[in-house]
Amino acid sequence: MLRVKSFRNVVRNYKVVFFDAFGVLKSHRGLIPNIKSTFEYLERKGILYYVLTNDSSRSPEELSRWYVGHGLECITTDKILSSGMLAMEFFQTKLHDGNAVGYLGTRASAHYLETAGLKTVSICDIDLDNLDHIESFAFLDDEGFDWNVDINKTINLLRKKNMNVVVANTDKNYPINKNDISVAIGGLADLVEKILGKKFIRFGKPDAQMFALAYERALQDIDIKRNEILMVGDTLFTDIIGGNKFGMDTALVLSGNTLPEMAAVRIKSSGIIPTYVCESAVIES
Amino acid sequence: MLRVKSFRNVVRNYKVVFFDAFGVLKSHRGLIPNIKSTFEYLERKGILYYVLTNDSSRSPEELSRWYVGHGLECITTDKILSSGMLAMEFFQTKLHDGNAVGYLGTRASAHYLETAGLKTVSICDIDLDNLDHIESFAFLDDEGFDWNVDINKTINLLRKKNMNVVVANTDKNYPINKNDISVAIGGLADLVEKILGKKFIRFGKPDAQMFALAYERALQDIDIKRNEILMVGDTLFTDIIGGNKFGMDTALVLSGNTLPEMAAVRIKSSGIIPTYVCESAVIES
Amino acid sequence: MLRVKSFRNVVRNYKVVFFDAFGVLKSHRGLIPNIKSTFEYLERKGILYYVLTNDSSRSPEELSRWYVGHGLECITTDKILSSGMLAMEFFQTKLHDGNAVGYLGTRASAHYLETAGLKTVSICDIDLDNLDHIESFAFLDDEGFDWNVDINKTINLLRKKNMNVVVANTDKNYPINKNDISVAIGGLADLVEKILGKKFIRFGKPDAQMFALAYERALQDIDIKRNEILMVGDTLFTDIIGGNKFGMDTALVLSGNTLPEMAAVRIKSSGIIPTYVCESAVIES
Amino acid sequence: MLRVKSFRNVVRNYKVVFFDAFGVLKSHRGLIPNIKSTFEYLERKGILYYVLTNDSSRSPEELSRWYVGHGLECITTDKILSSGMLAMEFFQTKLHDGNAVGYLGTRASAHYLETAGLKTVSICDIDLDNLDHIESFAFLDDEGFDWNVDINKTINLLRKKNMNVVVANTDKNYPINKNDISVAIGGLADLVEKILGKKFIRFGKPDAQMFALAYERALQDIDIKRNEILMVGDTLFTDIIGGNKFGMDTALVLSGNTLPEMAAVRIKSSGIIPTYVCESAVIES
Repeated sequence: MLRVKSFRNVVRNYKVVFFDAFGVLKSHRGLIPNIKSTFEYLERKGILYYVLTNDSSRSPEELSRWYVGHGLECITTDKILSSGMLAMEFFQTKLHDGNAVGYLGTRASAHYLETAGLKTVSICDIDLDNLDHIESFAFLDDEGFDWNVDINKTINLLRKKNMNVVVANTDKNYPINKNDISVAIGGLADLVEKILGKKFIRFGKPDAQMFALAYERALQDIDIKRNEILMVGDTLFTDIIGGNKFGMDTALVLSGNTLPEMAAVRIKSSGIIPTYVCESAVIES
Repeated sequence: MLRVKSFRNVVRNYKVVFFDAFGVLKSHRGLIPNIKSTFEYLERKGILYYVLTNDSSRSPEELSRWYVGHGLECITTDKILSSGMLAMEFFQTKLHDGNAVGYLGTRASAHYLETAGLKTVSICDIDLDNLDHIESFAFLDDEGFDWNVDINKTINLLRKKNMNVVVANTDKNYPINKNDISVAIGGLADLVEKILGKKFIRFGKPDAQMFALAYERALQDIDIKRNEILMVGDTLFTDIIGGNKFGMDTALVLSGNTLPEMAAVRIKSSGIIPTYVCESAVIES
Repeated sequence: MLRVKSFRNVVRNYKVVFFDAFGVLKSHRGLIPNIKSTFEYLERKGILYYVLTNDSSRSPEELSRWYVGHGLECITTDKILSSGMLAMEFFQTKLHDGNAVGYLGTRASAHYLETAGLKTVSICDIDLDNLDHIESFAFLDDEGFDWNVDINKTINLLRKKNMNVVVANTDKNYPINKNDISVAIGGLADLVEKILGKKFIRFGKPDAQMFALAYERALQDIDIKRNEILMVGDTLFTDIIGGNKFGMDTALVLSGNTLPEMAAVRIKSSGIIPTYVCESAVIES
Repeated sequence: MLRVKSFRNVVRNYKVVFFDAFGVLKSHRGLIPNIKSTFEYLERKGILYYVLTNDSSRSPEELSRWYVGHGLECITTDKILSSGMLAMEFFQTKLHDGNAVGYLGTRASAHYLETAGLKTVSICDIDLDNLDHIESFAFLDDEGFDWNVDINKTINLLRKKNMNVVVANTDKNYPINKNDISVAIGGLADLVEKILGKKFIRFGKPDAQMFALAYERALQDIDIKRNEILMVGDTLFTDIIGGNKFGMDTALVLSGNTLPEMAAVRIKSSGIIPTYVCESAVIES
């Protein structure tokens, strides 16, 4: 049987913790109740913490603002590492001056790229007969466009002009309330990729680049080895396998995607083995 | 190199021909030019013909009406075998009295099921809090609903209630003009199936059930063995591999999906080998 | 919760039963205990029965001999429908005189093809520099060859010469004792197909051709509709989804692949819904 | 059309080059002819170079010895970064004292792990009834074991005991002479993973961890940004997409996997776009 440990007893042995966001710190209802006391504990003990999220719909600034607005003032912008940051880095390196990134998503998701000086054009505004300046394409968010029209338009754009395509969030779906889910931009990207037979560039856990980004950030604050870091997540296929592979210890929490009654079966059937299993990341004060 | 034969020299050795529709008899522009003379030839020679189509957006009656309206009076309803017919047969067998089939598609696509006495409810009209009477679900057509809203609604419906799900057209996409394509209902079904991790029932070429349906129809008209039938199609992965597997001879035509300059490479890389390759199914009179 | 019915109460409403073999009639230990009384019951009630098996390692004659040798005299050759029979039919139609089928498998598995007048050559005996007479290839059995040498030889044969490739058993693995499994020829074929990027022709449940073969056999004995037939199997992904799709009623038995404690979860997660669930196919006399 | 540039004109704009090994520096016949003059050029210009290879069959020491033995004295151990190194790092972090890594591969492939103090046991020597000390498993090499026996034994081992499984080379196959290929350990791992339904940990290009390893090594020698590095490879799906994603410039060479006549088609159909295309990495002196 599965041995569940208290998060306090687990985390106190580490100098740095990486937290997944959804299912660990927050849910569709807002912050996980009492999660604030966890951060008070970490501050008290001098344990550093960072948030790793497959989110390209918002900038780290906006993501931080959400936490602060919900009473977690300690989650400042510099604590947040998102797959959207990797997408931005990619375009900063690869895009030639004067060219633009076409995208599927909200204006807000594109705005983040623009703060870095990148030009963007929503799929809605792209003229398929004049693609000279569209050099790359990004899947940013599942909202902000008409799926009937714009998914097909994206397919035909990418048939017309061969370009680097970035999927800035690998998640296939996300929960919208207690019972229901919604297709995420990563799921739509899979559909488009399959129909085109092409190969897109994906950023986000479980890919190592996401963990490397966070590790580099942590190294700016403290001299630390990978196996001195604890990765905390609610999903075996992203947080846990990715953390294990990167050489970190991992804690699966049962407050999100992986239900308590299914955890043992899922670990056995997937072969993805967290170092620890904890009920949640909450440390009651 | 690829040896291309004249369709006349190929077809005259068979008593029965099965035609794929799109790319063989018609295109996005209408009938393939001069295809009418092919049917005059077949009538003259006493060769029987049938049309096999992965189409569940319309009834065989309506499909026939299109041909007749374009001058091919000989394509009567009884000549047409569609994947939609297999879906209808399935529901006639499996659906209990008083229950209904939920669907994604146009009203027209559902109307066909209703002509057989089946009750249907569009996903738009389904109340997720009252699913008692919804017993099965069908993917019928890529039009007639709001993709943003109704694909997610379908996913949550199938999470709420376990039921038989039928994909009445296996095609992933279809051409809408000379250059552009559109996601077909089979592509949307793939997305939903993948997110749910469930297994849907699919009807349409290359599945044997489609060829068996046509073979049974032919047997009503003539006593014939499978290898006395020629399957004519433009797509290696549906018409040709399915025809080969069913024990028929197969002719790949280069008037549709498989471009003349790519045919040899595609045959070699896929390992799907048509008995013959012909430029088109047109027999000039 | 899952409602389990007695097999007697289920089967007596049908005129014809199709049985899967492994997990239903037999296991790695021999016949399922007391299964003989089931056939006595069926004989008494005048219910016809047939055995549908994904097996291409032996001829129907030899398969029958096994049952007879174990005391089930009623399972005569004409009661057995195997995926190997579909493979043989395919080669009888497609192979040109004088040409041979290369194969992976035992001599016994090839011997069956030879009884029908087909020429066969084991991969071990094929000369890659002289392939003129090798027209097709078959995956027949996971035994009878050296995996290290002959899987690679098969790959290079199929790279050298493009030909129709038949996988005569779609199963990926099979149980060899209470705890252990072995890779089946269908699993090895998947490996080869993936490395080549080609598309093989597969015979066996859940493919409709297997059920059509059995249905045609039944029609020789009795005039029957598909929905008057009961398909009995232990595997959701072959017997049950295939039977449902073919328009038959289906009974999942819990004596094989699907363990009693997992059945409800498997049905829910796969979306494959048997008409009935029974503990086993045994009818105590 | 594809614009092919001279490698000299490309490479001279970079401070650091990463080379793929097979198809770039060597082939089944030995060193690529005249590749030595490339390294003389790089030395002259002060351009640093490293070799990134998906190879877990040998230690970096042995890999270096091969180059030195063939006249490339400059490819010293510290220039070589292999997927086997990532596997070793993983086990060093994750394996508890006294425990062992089971493996598929040659004794030589395991010997490398043992030089780091890890205990290893070949699958041939594992007793399935006594697995207490086997904590992890590694796919190291396609040679050194009996595929018929030991692939099945591996499957049953991993069914008996849930453990971290590492695939130390992601390649599916490799060339053994001008015409023929052989299944690589990555292909065998795919087969086993699919049959088990589990998720293994894979090391090797195109995964970011491989490029991060090389980048960290380069940073020890020179202060450099990612986009000042050129990745040179012969395979779009590993070297080029991985290099692009990591933020490096990429050069596809046509001396290996990607044939000159197919390069333009492959780039277009895959959507993987190298920064440059060069005939080979040879710089004639």
